[in-house]
Formats: sequence, structure tokens, C-alpha cells
Amino acid sequence: MTRLHQAPPRPSQAELADFLAREFPQSKCSIEALGPRSATVRHPVGESELRPGGTVSGPVLMTVADVALYVAILGEIGIVPLTVTTSLNINFLRKPAGDRDILGVCTLMKLGRTLAVGEVSLYSEGSDEPVAHVVGTYAIPRKD
Amino acid sequence: MTRLHQAPPRPSQAELADFLAREFPQSKCSIEALGPRSATVRHPVGESELRPGGTVSGPVLMTVADVALYVAILGEIGIVPLTVTTSLNINFLRKPAGDRDILGVCTLMKLGRTLAVGEVSLYSEGSDEPVAHVVGTYAIPRKD
Amino acid sequence: MTRLHQAPPRPSQAELADFLAREFPQSKCSIEALGPRSATVRHPVGESELRPGGTVSGPVLMTVADVALYVAILGEIGIVPLTVTTSLNINFLRKPAGDRDILGVCTLMKLGRTLAVGEVSLYSEGSDEPVAHVVGTYAIPRKD
Amino acid sequence: MTRLHQAPPRPSQAELADFLAREFPQSKCSIEALGPRSATVRHPVGESELRPGGTVSGPVLMTVADVALYVAILGEIGIVPLTVTTSLNINFLRKPAGDRDILGVCTLMKLGRTLAVGEVSLYSEGSDEPVAHVVGTYAIPRKD
Repeated sequence: MTRLHQAPPRPSQAELADFLAREFPQSKCSIEALGPRSATVRHPVGESELRPGGTVSGPVLMTVADVALYVAILGEIGIVPLTVTTSLNINFLRKPAGDRDILGVCTLMKLGRTLAVGEVSLYSEGSDEPVAHVVGTYAIPRKD
Repeated sequence: MTRLHQAPPRPSQAELADFLAREFPQSKCSIEALGPRSATVRHPVGESELRPGGTVSGPVLMTVADVALYVAILGEIGIVPLTVTTSLNINFLRKPAGDRDILGVCTLMKLGRTLAVGEVSLYSEGSDEPVAHVVGTYAIPRKD
Repeated sequence: MTRLHQAPPRPSQAELADFLAREFPQSKCSIEALGPRSATVRHPVGESELRPGGTVSGPVLMTVADVALYVAILGEIGIVPLTVTTSLNINFLRKPAGDRDILGVCTLMKLGRTLAVGEVSLYSEGSDEPVAHVVGTYAIPRKD
Repeated sequence: MTRLHQAPPRPSQAELADFLAREFPQSKCSIEALGPRSATVRHPVGESELRPGGTVSGPVLMTVADVALYVAILGEIGIVPLTVTTSLNINFLRKPAGDRDILGVCTLMKLGRTLAVGEVSLYSEGSDEPVAHVVGTYAIPRKD
């Protein structure tokens, strides 16, 4: 009888991929894995992601984190497009490789009715030392 | 006689614009103003900056802030390309207009020998309510 | 007819001081000024605020910022005790003086129905170079 | 032959406890565990840590995180007292229990020559859902 029972069903990975293609049309991110309160996304690295010196640009890393958080949250609450990023804190830790995809591994730390908080470790594929770390917060619209 | 006297000369706005074009070739930011410990940059908003619903994507806002901080710092210390972003914290405050340029107004709060910290208020042109606020920190390479 | 008309009245500075004394009984902060979307608070500095080397401890600075944000928000929305800090980001900029009070000068950047965001510059009294800068976010309980 | 060989020896947990008692004399934190790039600290919760409503005050949580990061860093680099916090970002996730100690579990993500970055999950003892999460950055003085 409560509102919680009217939550949208959990989307499949394919449904989330469709949503991403619509909602972030400029993004090249793909969903690598989806789990309970977690998600991994991948971003290819080519000319348009690099800065002189062969490093991946900061905004690409922030985009990967934002998408990973989005996917992890919507994987839990269903496709609620009005869920919006309210803050994002990134620390750049190491120089990313210029010839490796970026992987973003997200874990949610809180999933409340109106606020979700998660962290993302970003890696150059093949390394287990993160290139950056992100904490993001999201506002979930209330159903009323 | 001190190292400080060997600092590179302050670049002109045109020299900084040349540097940006080389260092951030994908960026569409232009320098609007340059002052003591401050800078304003502009980013046009078109199809490729928008998300469904007509809002400017988060990564565009983060890029504007990053560039504004970069310009303000290099305007003080000279063109030191190895200056790198170490952290960036963004709070999204209001929905940006989909048909207005984004302006990023940066003020430096600290300019030490190895660390600079600044803040950026981001606006849709024509409004004086910020759409987002950023604090960024940068590592400046030591001259030795 | 709308809920907005039932908002609590704006408290006076004296009412906010009473609230602080009850809500933050361990805090030594006093309210220095209260304005539209802004507040200034003061914290004395003595033995128990200092760390070896004569610098003010980080947690004291964070407390001052938290109280300044609280006061600025409640000065606008009325005394809503369930308003809670959801995040706080502090950058330490300079060594505070060991023999001066700390002043926290807060400006709100957003005051929505459920979320408030503000920034605080922290000073050693008598200096106009900030010792630290804080951005804080607060969740405001909905009236329903 | 390199400077790295002149690094101070890794301190024992007892040496770090002595250092804390001197450097953070107001703090009630104790070191629970010390590992490679990691540390756990404990803070008792009594009247002076509580706010009305029976929740642990935010500054106590920030103190625990700051101490945990300090201990994890100094456990790696030796007791370098001039290591200073440069930023701290905390997200409050859940209401802490009023009758349980707070535990801070820290992992370092980067330990460079001049900058260390780590994260801390904070728990009410006995629960495995964190009450808060912190990312902190520290400047390490150069040996020259």
C-alpha cells in the first residue's frame, strides 16, 4: 500500500544503455557492468579525449564519473530522468594513460528517498592504481 | 636576486588565448576578461552542449570552471603548462538556460609557490543568479 | 493559501543566538551580524583551539563555517531545527593567527525548498586574506 | 644514494599515539589499527560529542577523519609534523548512534612526494553502514 511499491521496476542493463544514448547523446560511455548499488562504465580514449602531453582531459574523467553514478542510481531506483547531479568532487591522483580506455567503478554509499551519494574510482584500463576519485551527490525527485 | 625575479613575465590576454587554443584544443572557451587574480571566460551553448530538456550538460560547466581557473592562475604566474588541476568541487545550483552562453567568473583565493586555490561562479549570460559554483585547486611545479 | 505563507517568521539575531546556545551547546560561536542570505559569526581563540605551533585547529574552522551557514539559512527560513548539513568542503589557505578570533563570513548561493548551498570565508580577525574557505550544503525538511 | 633513503623510519603504532597526544592534545581519538596505507581510529561518544536529538556533532566526525588520515599518512612517511591538511570534503550519510563510539577507517589513494590523498568511512561502532564519508588531501613538506 505504500508509495514504495509503486517504484518503477529495476531497469535492465540494455534499458539503461538506451536511456544513456538518449539522455547523454554526446557521451561515448558504455555500461560495462551493473550490480547492486554499483556500476562500471567505460569510455574510449582517442584524439578528442587527449590534451597535449598525451593525458586524458579532466572533463572526460568527470563525465565518466557522472555517468557511472547515474547508472548505479537508476539501476536501483528505476529510470527517473529528473534525477540530477547536485555536487561532484573530483581528486586527480595520477596521469592517465593516453592509449587506454577509462573505466569508472561506482559504489553507492547512500540511497535515500531524495538524496543519493556515491563514489567512483577511475582507472586507465589495465592498471589498478586509480587516476582519479569522485564523490557525487544526486537529488531524486519525490513522487508526489 | 630571489627566484621570484626569475618568474616568467605575465602573459597578455592574447598570449593566454593562444595557449588555450593549443592546450585545450577541444574547448570552445574564450577569454572575456583578465584581471589581478581573476578571469572571466565564455563558452557558447549550442546543440552539442545541451542535454534533453534543454539544460547545459554538467561537463560543459566543469570545463568552463577549469579553464577560468587555469587562465586566472597563468595570468599571474606566467604560462607554466605543467600546472595541473588537483581537485575540483562543483555544486549545481540552478538550471542553466539552453539558449545563453555560459560565463565563468573566477577569483583566486590563494596563490602559493606550489598550490593555487580559486573559486568560479558560473552564470547563464544575462542572469546574476549563478547556475553552479566551483572550487578548484592546482599544483604549480617548483622551479628547481 | 499556499504552504509558503505558513513559513515560520524570520527570527531575530537574539532568537538565533538562543537557538545556537541550545543546539550547539559546546560551541563558543557568537553571531556578529545577520543580513539577507548572509551571516557573520565569531569564535574566540584560546588554548583549547590551538595546535602545537600556535595554529587554530581545523575542526574549529569547520565548526565556525558550519555555524555561519546554519545561522544564514535559519535567518531566512526560520528556526527549522531539522535542517541538517549534508556536505561540507573546506580548503585551508593560510595559517591562522594564534592570538586572534576567527570570523566566518557566509553568503548563501542557493536557498531552495529542500536544499541550501552557501560559502564561508574564514579570517583571523584583522586580516583580509582568508585562512580557509568552505562550501556547505544543507537539507531542509519539507513541510508536509 | 637518493633522498628516499633518508626518509624517517616508519613509526610504530605507539610512536604515532605519542605524536597524536602531543599534536592533537584536545582530541580523544585513539589508534585502533595501522596497516599499509591504512589506519583505523576510534573516538568515544559522550555528552560533549552529542547535539540535541542524540546525534554526534559534525565537527567530531571531521576530527576523526582528519586524525585517521594523518595517522595513515605518517604511518607511511614517518612523523613529519609539518604535514598539513589542505582540503577536506565530508558527506553526511546517516544519523550516527548517540551511544556508540565512532570508528574512522582510512585508506590512502595517493601518496606522492608532496601530496597525499585518502578517504575515510566513518561508522557508529557495530554498524556497517557508514554515517559519513570523507576525502582529504594533505601537503607533505619537501625535504630540501
